[in-house]
Amino acid sequence: MTLDIETPAGPARARLKTRPLALDTFRENVVVLSRDCVAMRPERLAGQRKVEIRAGGRTYLAAPMICDEPSVVAADEIGLPEPLLHRLGALAGTWVEVAPARAAETLDEVRAKVMGETLSADAYMAIARDLADHRLSDIEVAAFLVACAGFMTADETLDFTRAMVAVGDRLDWDHRLVVDKHCIGGVPGNRTSLVVTPIIAAHGLLMPKTSSRAITSPAGTADTMEVLARVDLSAEEMRAVVEQCGACVAWSGRMNLSPADDVLISVERPLSIDTPEQMVASILSKKIAAGSRHLVLDVPVGPSAKIRDRRAALKLKKLFEYVGGRLGLSLEVLITEALQPIGRGVGPVLEARDVRAVLACDPDAPADLREKSIRLAGRVLEADPALMGGKGEARARELLDSGAAGRKMDEIIAAQGPSPISSGLGDLVHEVRAHRDGVVSSVDCLRIATLARLAGAPTDPGAGLDLLAKMGTRVRAGQPLYRLYASEPSDFGFAVEAADRDSGVSLAA
Amino acid sequence: MTLDIETPAGPARARLKTRPLALDTFRENVVVLSRDCVAMRPERLAGQRKVEIRAGGRTYLAAPMICDEPSVVAADEIGLPEPLLHRLGALAGTWVEVAPARAAETLDEVRAKVMGETLSADAYMAIARDLADHRLSDIEVAAFLVACAGFMTADETLDFTRAMVAVGDRLDWDHRLVVDKHCIGGVPGNRTSLVVTPIIAAHGLLMPKTSSRAITSPAGTADTMEVLARVDLSAEEMRAVVEQCGACVAWSGRMNLSPADDVLISVERPLSIDTPEQMVASILSKKIAAGSRHLVLDVPVGPSAKIRDRRAALKLKKLFEYVGGRLGLSLEVLITEALQPIGRGVGPVLEARDVRAVLACDPDAPADLREKSIRLAGRVLEADPALMGGKGEARARELLDSGAAGRKMDEIIAAQGPSPISSGLGDLVHEVRAHRDGVVSSVDCLRIATLARLAGAPTDPGAGLDLLAKMGTRVRAGQPLYRLYASEPSDFGFAVEAADRDSGVSLAA
Repeated sequence: MTLDIETPAGPARARLKTRPLALDTFRENVVVLSRDCVAMRPERLAGQRKVEIRAGGRTYLAAPMICDEPSVVAADEIGLPEPLLHRLGALAGTWVEVAPARAAETLDEVRAKVMGETLSADAYMAIARDLADHRLSDIEVAAFLVACAGFMTADETLDFTRAMVAVGDRLDWDHRLVVDKHCIGGVPGNRTSLVVTPIIAAHGLLMPKTSSRAITSPAGTADTMEVLARVDLSAEEMRAVVEQCGACVAWSGRMNLSPADDVLISVERPLSIDTPEQMVASILSKKIAAGSRHLVLDVPVGPSAKIRDRRAALKLKKLFEYVGGRLGLSLEVLITEALQPIGRGVGPVLEARDVRAVLACDPDAPADLREKSIRLAGRVLEADPALMGGKGEARARELLDSGAAGRKMDEIIAAQGPSPISSGLGDLVHEVRAHRDGVVSSVDCLRIATLARLAGAPTDPGAGLDLLAKMGTRVRAGQPLYRLYASEPSDFGFAVEAADRDSGVSLAA
Repeated sequence: MTLDIETPAGPARARLKTRPLALDTFRENVVVLSRDCVAMRPERLAGQRKVEIRAGGRTYLAAPMICDEPSVVAADEIGLPEPLLHRLGALAGTWVEVAPARAAETLDEVRAKVMGETLSADAYMAIARDLADHRLSDIEVAAFLVACAGFMTADETLDFTRAMVAVGDRLDWDHRLVVDKHCIGGVPGNRTSLVVTPIIAAHGLLMPKTSSRAITSPAGTADTMEVLARVDLSAEEMRAVVEQCGACVAWSGRMNLSPADDVLISVERPLSIDTPEQMVASILSKKIAAGSRHLVLDVPVGPSAKIRDRRAALKLKKLFEYVGGRLGLSLEVLITEALQPIGRGVGPVLEARDVRAVLACDPDAPADLREKSIRLAGRVLEADPALMGGKGEARARELLDSGAAGRKMDEIIAAQGPSPISSGLGDLVHEVRAHRDGVVSSVDCLRIATLARLAGAPTDPGAGLDLLAKMGTRVRAGQPLYRLYASEPSDFGFAVEAADRDSGVSLAA
């Protein structure tokens, strides 16, 4: 039975005095109320209903905990742990209005989706708004995501993408040619964006690149860029960098671009699910909100990649083109081959090392990362009418080989500011070795990603693995195949044991 | 990309001193660690990974929070809020072993289900075990539930039901004739179990009835029984009551019968979803674990009930019969008509009043509750070979009218012990009145349930509504249709406003 929970204006609100608490509840908003709270009976919320807090013209929702110690939280107080304290910006002793939260208006829509129904554009607009306002609990977000994974039409994906753009901010770049490049992920080490971006900017096109952190992989573009420069830019800071350099590589999390997507990702991450429809809605909503007009999209296909076969890749390509086209985006989808990881390093610090080597035209730089970046940059450059019809790739190669791209990257890094994190490698090192003579016949993308994540990447930027023998390499028994790096003994133990069981590297005679 | 997270034995564990905290996190296990914790770096868990605690030979999982105030939790301490403190039974200053928790072994299976795959019996066994051990997060449980709502075969439902029985305790009643009666719910006021149980026991059959609390309704059988007697019996206490009286009506939550189902219900409740497959697995696993051999199942069908049409009811009936049959249960499914609520009261206290009136043979007792109870009790009684072939109903009527069932209920109530909750009605009262002359043509089950829940039922047992004019009643403009009861001003406000907008009662000329 689905209950159509009502959302009336409700009774008058009560006021409570804020009390900062030295507690960190991670990303979740939590408040601590006295069992004798003067504003409501918190035990009646029974862990199911949230508390609504109004302060400074905004409304916040938080899960309540009950405190039985008056010296910690008194009856007329509301205890504020991080991150809510930070979000509210409230000082100790100020007053906020509180009330039991009404249920999200869109829960009926979420339940209809769970039951396999098709939702209207209005329903998706309301859901996107409730997501952006943090009105849905994690459980409800998970239910919505999984229901969409089960069944979602192309038009629903379009409606939801449009709604996700609408409920956030949107950057406008004054009609200049704004281009972007994105990869759907799934191939470790595939950090082409960090090579492509400075090539494009060196040519003079505008590329305000925003990236998320890793969702299911050992490093996202933002995680790797953070080894080189600050990435948590505000929208204003991003604009200043782009005005100065023609490009940036910023983390999208501090901007209000498709904020509903940020909430979805926070639930997709622990679930490690990433469906075609959510991928399209997530990527395109972020790109359109960031003001992109031309987008080159890399869809790697391979037996251990996110997309396993050409049929699935073509289906995804069509969905991207359908939604992107209706939303006014000029979109080129490139289906690329992904038989093994790209480059050598997997994990933020190691991937940043590879990117630096390619931009420095180091002769030892990984050739696959260099060539794939040139190819993708070439396609992006063809948004420039002067390079249309296949002249992009030569121009990209020229900008990389001349050092122009490398200098542009230095400029971008200087404009974004110094990295706040350590660029050191983990000091726990383990070499995984060939157990016999042979030729490396495959390197499993999924397995390598799993091992790098077990080692601690991307939370620990210096964790990951360094591939020493890629496909086609002849190795002797005992020769190292890759090196595992970690900082935490528990992570190291997990990763080494898992690599011993299945290294992800196969040898042929 | 799905990541096959590994589950190695892991590194050595560290020890921390327990520190009770006067915090109540409701049902969720939470621990508070110092940011300088000597055992692990809690910020590395980043709100995504749990902490594993070993104490007294058992393992518990808990979500961590970080404390920056050494006087609250020191670096060598682990802060224990309720309910974990209660579950651990730990005293201040004792030592427990802690480690970052490994991911649940069955997350890959959950993700496979999300992607629409059919799972094996082994996979369901592992999932049921992880559910019972609280190894899955709420997000993961929600993902599993919604994935199953999308697609689940009859054989998967069978495998999962069998697994849910296997991972819990199982009661055995020494080969006596053990019967039960259950309703799938969805019809407010349908408290027939509280009339049927004493009739069956008065005849001499064994009916050890266990019930859950309300999932999506304003009162479950356990909620209503709790107005009359204590229901949170342990398995031993339940056995003693059944040995003495031949029956009981106990809440299943304190027994370890299908504990995986308890975890599923805790997530179904806030989502308000209740799919056929989960209904079958939940109900049958609980009944089989409780030792029932004969089960009569009430499936109400109506335009505003859980099951809307006969086709859906027949499909559900077949699924119940398939799974129940393979698991050795003699099962009779009765499809009943549900055009409006049963009885007059909706909400624990008001429903208990109706049940008492029927058992006391009060001439003003609701006739529909009385007649439906007699019919269902008759079917249950036919498990007795002496009553087979249609003689059950007359015997049921005789046991009710003679007062034998009423006396049996008094006996059960005395054996279970006095109710710990107030049996008073909420003191905020609002009458919903007919806006014109007419005949009541329908009373919407779903709407009435929603209004009663908004008023506070079942958390507030005295909240709910009392129907004064059921279908076919001729009313004058201004005449009361029902009375709303609540205790909390905010609940009262929500319910009154919602009832003013849509009362759930329709009038015909």
